[in-house]
Amino acid sequence: MEENKRVLIIGGGFAGLACAKKMANKPGLDVTLVDRENHHLFQPLLYQVATAALAAPDIARSLRQLMCYAANVTVLMDTIEKINPEIQQASSKRRCYDYDYLVLAAGAQTSYFGNDDWAKYTLGLKSLDDAADVRRCFFGALERAELTDDLEERKRLMTIGIVGGGPTGIELAGAYSDLARRALKTNFRRLNINDLRVVVVQSGDRILKPFDVDQSEYAKARLEKSGVEVVLGHRVTGVEKHTLLFDNREPIKAETLIWAAGVTASPLTKMLGVETDRGGRVETKPDLSITDHAHIFLAGDVTNHSDAKGVSVPGLAPAASQMGSYIGDRIITLSSAPGEHIVEPFIYLDKGMMAIIGKSAAVVKLGSIKMRGLLAWIAWLVIHLLFLIGFRNKLSVLLQWAWAYIKDKPGARVFTARSSQR
Amino acid sequence: MEENKRVLIIGGGFAGLACAKKMANKPGLDVTLVDRENHHLFQPLLYQVATAALAAPDIARSLRQLMCYAANVTVLMDTIEKINPEIQQASSKRRCYDYDYLVLAAGAQTSYFGNDDWAKYTLGLKSLDDAADVRRCFFGALERAELTDDLEERKRLMTIGIVGGGPTGIELAGAYSDLARRALKTNFRRLNINDLRVVVVQSGDRILKPFDVDQSEYAKARLEKSGVEVVLGHRVTGVEKHTLLFDNREPIKAETLIWAAGVTASPLTKMLGVETDRGGRVETKPDLSITDHAHIFLAGDVTNHSDAKGVSVPGLAPAASQMGSYIGDRIITLSSAPGEHIVEPFIYLDKGMMAIIGKSAAVVKLGSIKMRGLLAWIAWLVIHLLFLIGFRNKLSVLLQWAWAYIKDKPGARVFTARSSQR
Repeated sequence: MEENKRVLIIGGGFAGLACAKKMANKPGLDVTLVDRENHHLFQPLLYQVATAALAAPDIARSLRQLMCYAANVTVLMDTIEKINPEIQQASSKRRCYDYDYLVLAAGAQTSYFGNDDWAKYTLGLKSLDDAADVRRCFFGALERAELTDDLEERKRLMTIGIVGGGPTGIELAGAYSDLARRALKTNFRRLNINDLRVVVVQSGDRILKPFDVDQSEYAKARLEKSGVEVVLGHRVTGVEKHTLLFDNREPIKAETLIWAAGVTASPLTKMLGVETDRGGRVETKPDLSITDHAHIFLAGDVTNHSDAKGVSVPGLAPAASQMGSYIGDRIITLSSAPGEHIVEPFIYLDKGMMAIIGKSAAVVKLGSIKMRGLLAWIAWLVIHLLFLIGFRNKLSVLLQWAWAYIKDKPGARVFTARSSQR
Repeated sequence: MEENKRVLIIGGGFAGLACAKKMANKPGLDVTLVDRENHHLFQPLLYQVATAALAAPDIARSLRQLMCYAANVTVLMDTIEKINPEIQQASSKRRCYDYDYLVLAAGAQTSYFGNDDWAKYTLGLKSLDDAADVRRCFFGALERAELTDDLEERKRLMTIGIVGGGPTGIELAGAYSDLARRALKTNFRRLNINDLRVVVVQSGDRILKPFDVDQSEYAKARLEKSGVEVVLGHRVTGVEKHTLLFDNREPIKAETLIWAAGVTASPLTKMLGVETDRGGRVETKPDLSITDHAHIFLAGDVTNHSDAKGVSVPGLAPAASQMGSYIGDRIITLSSAPGEHIVEPFIYLDKGMMAIIGKSAAVVKLGSIKMRGLLAWIAWLVIHLLFLIGFRNKLSVLLQWAWAYIKDKPGARVFTARSSQR
């Protein structure tokens, strides 16, 4: 009898999860799914947890629970620190993991383009902990603004600086401006919530660059109408405590500084013995494996892949899922019928992209189809609900959105004070 | 024209909130409500956040939002550190608060009966942060138990020690045993979840002491049936890392140690210049004011009060609310018609007490009425839903409970790893 093949999946995001599901209960495969966290996170809605519109458990699900139906899948919460392709082994501080097939789907992390000291003064937004920090910083700043009598201090406390005009930066800016104008309107006695200043900084000449020019312009106009300042064509050249510095512009002083300007692939890509690009990503072969290691596959934000039709696969959730599923299928084929195969290459199916700007406003781009405004906003809501994992989560999010829409008041605005006290 | 009277309420729990609501929009009163946190917390359901049955925002509401209808109430998030009754002033690190009337409703905190070093090795359960810590510790321990090959370590990781057989301890124990037998049943591959050991330690001769003897015995039998070990008549004499020590019994080794054995009143009671009892509480006059300071009132867990009928007022949410409301009325009377009044003393209306033991099991005691089992369980659910503040929270909790009941699987079991990593 042949031994089962051991598949190690690193990362339980969209790519890793789709891959594990593909191989669930397939004979001949022992799958181990390792993630640093105990949950799969629906990152597209993370900004809503950061702005207190949703609760953390609404957009996360226990990986164990998601995979509990699959007897051949073992979920472990562990932090992989090394990969040694020569001996087919990965390892953490606690364990070694031998594999026959490796799927690296460890995702990306916030990148400061070499200025890692900037991380001290700005908040990233990649995990539930990050979202809790952003929430605590923003709402805590408003609490201190209400307490203080120092007008200069109050001004700083009531300013939010967001670096990066991509979807995350724009969605955050829209959400803050909505919060101020609607939910928080009647909440304060000593400060004027209309003084809340939200500034988005984008080094390029327009926001939402992956979208078309007219969509970028629509988004900018819409944000400015709701009071957001959009600063274009200025690159941050330094970050100090509560301050963004520029070469040719006065600094922006803000208590809450959010860094949404870029990501870099997990450092595990550096251990594969192959070249990585400026973003730490690896160029993969048509079947998403890597040169010299046909048993190692990469999916999601760790790859820089152009598919067989020449389409550059974007760093979006649907792309990651498609790659994960493809690799799952590929490993099933390889393990059940060893030898040479005709390899069907990975083909990316473009599901489009979308960004929400505020209440009743979003932009959608799918091939040559473009939408904006209310229709795009409804499409955004429906798509995000459909792809959110778990019926319970869908129901909970639907109710909270409906409630927020009817009452015109998003969010529970509850935060815990601990981190700022200690 | 007379100046408005300044009322300072310290604490936004059941007592402080009820008091502020009483005085909302009443002419002649400027009310300031100060709390360390930005939210009112529904403490009776805190154990459900700790055991991941509910999300934190489900049982908390922004104090600003709760009081936003009251133009004469200013909510401030601040930590009062001093009270000086002679000059009628309280102060924090940031501000001084002058008052004409002071309402001290600062609640209680976990007490280690003089052994404050025990706090290092055990978790309390008084705040949302505490609940997050308990959740992280328990679920994190199971993750590490699944990872490890050391059987001795796994045994410790899979043991929970709870000190205190009052409602909090019992509700936690019941919830953990439910989690193991139902929700987590199919989640693990390497450990046997039936090995999970939940131990409750009670120094007295029965659990749930405020209830009747037959109710205590019912609760004990019910817990034991579901696998909880109930240790009676043993007092903890020492706490070390992951270990409870006793004089006449072998130690209990457990990764998760929860201290639910007692509380002590806020240390602010010591600054009033009056005597406090062993639990730091102050004996109050029939109108809940204190000797020599007719303008200072105490409500909730900071008082040790026997009402005009000789009933000792218990440390329960309904009692705190009643005291807060009474004080609100009293201040309205005093401020609108100064001079001597006939004082209607505070009379406590007993609303009974209840504790949940597990699925379909609870005990209820209301005067001479006693209930247990399914009926008591339903009563517990209904009462807690009714008294939870906010329709949105009620709806969310109702849905989650219904979902857990139908699917037989409580909770989202999501936790964040940060604290354990840093």
